[in-house]
Amino acid sequence: MEDNKFRAEIARAFDAARSQNPLAPSITNTVTQDFVANAQLAVGGSAAMMYLADECESIVKIAPAFYINMGTAMPFYAETLPRAAKTCHELQKPWVLDPVGIGLSELRTKILLQLKDFKPSIVRGNASEIIALAKLWGLINVAGGQVRGVESTEKVSDAKIAAVALAKFTGGAVAVSGEEDLVTDSKEIIMCTGGTELFTKITGSGCALGGVMAVYAAVASPLVAALTATTVFNLAGSKATADANGPASFKVRFLDNLYNLTANEVSEKFRAVESLFESMFNFGVVAFPHADSLEVTQ
Amino acid sequence: MEDNKFRAEIARAFDAARSQNPLAPSITNTVTQDFVANAQLAVGGSAAMMYLADECESIVKIAPAFYINMGTAMPFYAETLPRAAKTCHELQKPWVLDPVGIGLSELRTKILLQLKDFKPSIVRGNASEIIALAKLWGLINVAGGQVRGVESTEKVSDAKIAAVALAKFTGGAVAVSGEEDLVTDSKEIIMCTGGTELFTKITGSGCALGGVMAVYAAVASPLVAALTATTVFNLAGSKATADANGPASFKVRFLDNLYNLTANEVSEKFRAVESLFESMFNFGVVAFPHADSLEVTQ
Amino acid sequence: MEDNKFRAEIARAFDAARSQNPLAPSITNTVTQDFVANAQLAVGGSAAMMYLADECESIVKIAPAFYINMGTAMPFYAETLPRAAKTCHELQKPWVLDPVGIGLSELRTKILLQLKDFKPSIVRGNASEIIALAKLWGLINVAGGQVRGVESTEKVSDAKIAAVALAKFTGGAVAVSGEEDLVTDSKEIIMCTGGTELFTKITGSGCALGGVMAVYAAVASPLVAALTATTVFNLAGSKATADANGPASFKVRFLDNLYNLTANEVSEKFRAVESLFESMFNFGVVAFPHADSLEVTQ
Repeated sequence: MEDNKFRAEIARAFDAARSQNPLAPSITNTVTQDFVANAQLAVGGSAAMMYLADECESIVKIAPAFYINMGTAMPFYAETLPRAAKTCHELQKPWVLDPVGIGLSELRTKILLQLKDFKPSIVRGNASEIIALAKLWGLINVAGGQVRGVESTEKVSDAKIAAVALAKFTGGAVAVSGEEDLVTDSKEIIMCTGGTELFTKITGSGCALGGVMAVYAAVASPLVAALTATTVFNLAGSKATADANGPASFKVRFLDNLYNLTANEVSEKFRAVESLFESMFNFGVVAFPHADSLEVTQ
Repeated sequence: MEDNKFRAEIARAFDAARSQNPLAPSITNTVTQDFVANAQLAVGGSAAMMYLADECESIVKIAPAFYINMGTAMPFYAETLPRAAKTCHELQKPWVLDPVGIGLSELRTKILLQLKDFKPSIVRGNASEIIALAKLWGLINVAGGQVRGVESTEKVSDAKIAAVALAKFTGGAVAVSGEEDLVTDSKEIIMCTGGTELFTKITGSGCALGGVMAVYAAVASPLVAALTATTVFNLAGSKATADANGPASFKVRFLDNLYNLTANEVSEKFRAVESLFESMFNFGVVAFPHADSLEVTQ
Repeated sequence: MEDNKFRAEIARAFDAARSQNPLAPSITNTVTQDFVANAQLAVGGSAAMMYLADECESIVKIAPAFYINMGTAMPFYAETLPRAAKTCHELQKPWVLDPVGIGLSELRTKILLQLKDFKPSIVRGNASEIIALAKLWGLINVAGGQVRGVESTEKVSDAKIAAVALAKFTGGAVAVSGEEDLVTDSKEIIMCTGGTELFTKITGSGCALGGVMAVYAAVASPLVAALTATTVFNLAGSKATADANGPASFKVRFLDNLYNLTANEVSEKFRAVESLFESMFNFGVVAFPHADSLEVTQ
């Protein structure tokens, strides 16, 4: 993998969001909407949140990308989420899925099963969520994927096979958030480092990251969008840690830094720790018997 | 127009909100409720958000003003919004309407058509929203009023005729927010300046402004309430810009400044750029034959 | 009452939340969810918000405590709240009730009447809410309990009998928030001081306090949980006042301080002003003949 290639593309995506001000509407949870919207604005995007199916359909027509976060599901999500995703799929608008809360209810399972057909351009979640989604969609068959509330009980590295399987299936990208962040389009696996533990001390950093991925997905490929969002978050987060007195001042500084980043420092920050794809074979990913359960034929 | 007259009334409204602590409940979007409530508290008001029709009816009976922001419409808004507005109208309680998202769905159109009969004391929106509402209510018949998500595609000055038409119809005031802010009661048009571009870099400044207008509407005329809210926002915003490091620290400083303003500096800050009413005749508003159908005869 | 006894238990609860990271999910209002979640994280807990009845049931099974805030009731609350409380009761998981908005609608009254059977481990509210709930549940029969929106029209001391009656009935604790805070398990009444008036200038400090009580209820008795939460709030709040420029910077500093507190300073901070239980007999509470109908025989 060539860091340089990604660096140039990340810088391009970063600048494009600033200059094109893409609208990336969301249906997302009620807890962290303010944070999601402000993070989207900070990187140059535009935000709009909604709950009604026909409103999602209307806005997908004029917006270049969309964000679906299962979040605090309400009864009408049963109609809204599939229709929003279907519209994105039909109009070929990139959309980001955060399957937070997967497994918590039959409604979520039913909705997520319907979303499978509308292949999200980017799936973002913690390790347990990514494993659970890959299992729910029949792409892998392993143990794991236990979520505790909204928290992962597994490490990012545990979700490697699930992430590759998902990306292979959707043809898009998958981002697994954690101490390190794994981003893959099934062909390459990139580990991003340099974030901060303070992200786990505030609510919504994962949600906001998904929203920002949607902004970048409006101006770049799913893989580059996921990498760009991950990199700007890690950079703004680690800078904010320096003079934060606790989680709340960290959050203020994080958003300020997100707003003040330059393409230069972002692309310089990006460094893939290693391309881990080949090493997968070392720990046993030798065959995915049929398409729904990932061929790794490299 | 006499600046001095407004200055005294603005100072009076500012102080009255501080001393009377008026409750201005809201049905407003889930994204920015925290900001709306904290802005209302900062100017001396009291906040309460709700979603159920009978709760709105109950609280309107004890509250001196109400705020309706179409925001993130949910299915039950179909019942809640008309009943809340009807109660305000019947009990002659001033209420503020923010028609955000106008045109996005049939539900919004249906609701906004019902709200017409209950004449909002203040309508606040961006230029596109104000134009769209005046058209929806059959008050003007011109091109324009295209909303992009929650953003305006038009300038404040483009909404002048629409704003006057709306104010003429409701008998209240209309505020068009943008780089400059236009406030009118159809008899006078006042341009307010001195805000900051950072308002567009955070989510909810328009929503919070509407909420604060409702607080002042409890203690002053619609026109003075709209002017007072606009002036305190512009002043607190421009003061906050000075030492902000980005949008998040701006928001913190803005709310702090809103809380610390004095009636004196607010009334001194207020300066109507010009009274533009006469000049309207120059660009074609020659007759208001009857309230329901303003003729735009250019 | 021995301050020392409580100090040791408070320190233990404080440390246990930090080390055990208990998940305390909530169904709470849409206005202040972000604040509730961030306060829960700041004291070492874990947060998750939800709206669906079966999701509450699922998560109560894996969570050691739960928080119900009536807040911005939505139509589906009619099903969610009783089922969530019932599950807590059946599985003997401590749960905290904030009856905010009590009396505002028939739905709230109906729900709160159903919740009576599922005896909340902690009830937290302002004086008017606590009086209103004790009356609604038929535990006292006095004047009072008028709520203005979300604000109390009564003083903390006015709610003493109501608080004791509620605690007697539930077998848990009751916390009345105000200028001073009253905490009781019906056997002891503890007055906590040292907060700050700035809590009334931001939205959600009561909600966040309830959420933090749920975190501590996962690791301590209801009484100690209520005392610990109240003490950390008062301490972090009074520290934050020192260098705050207004309510927004106060909120940032408050959360930072909440995160940085030590068990030592918290337990030292705790000082029961006086144990007022005996003095109650002076104003007429002479008998608690049976739990369901506290006699006020003066």
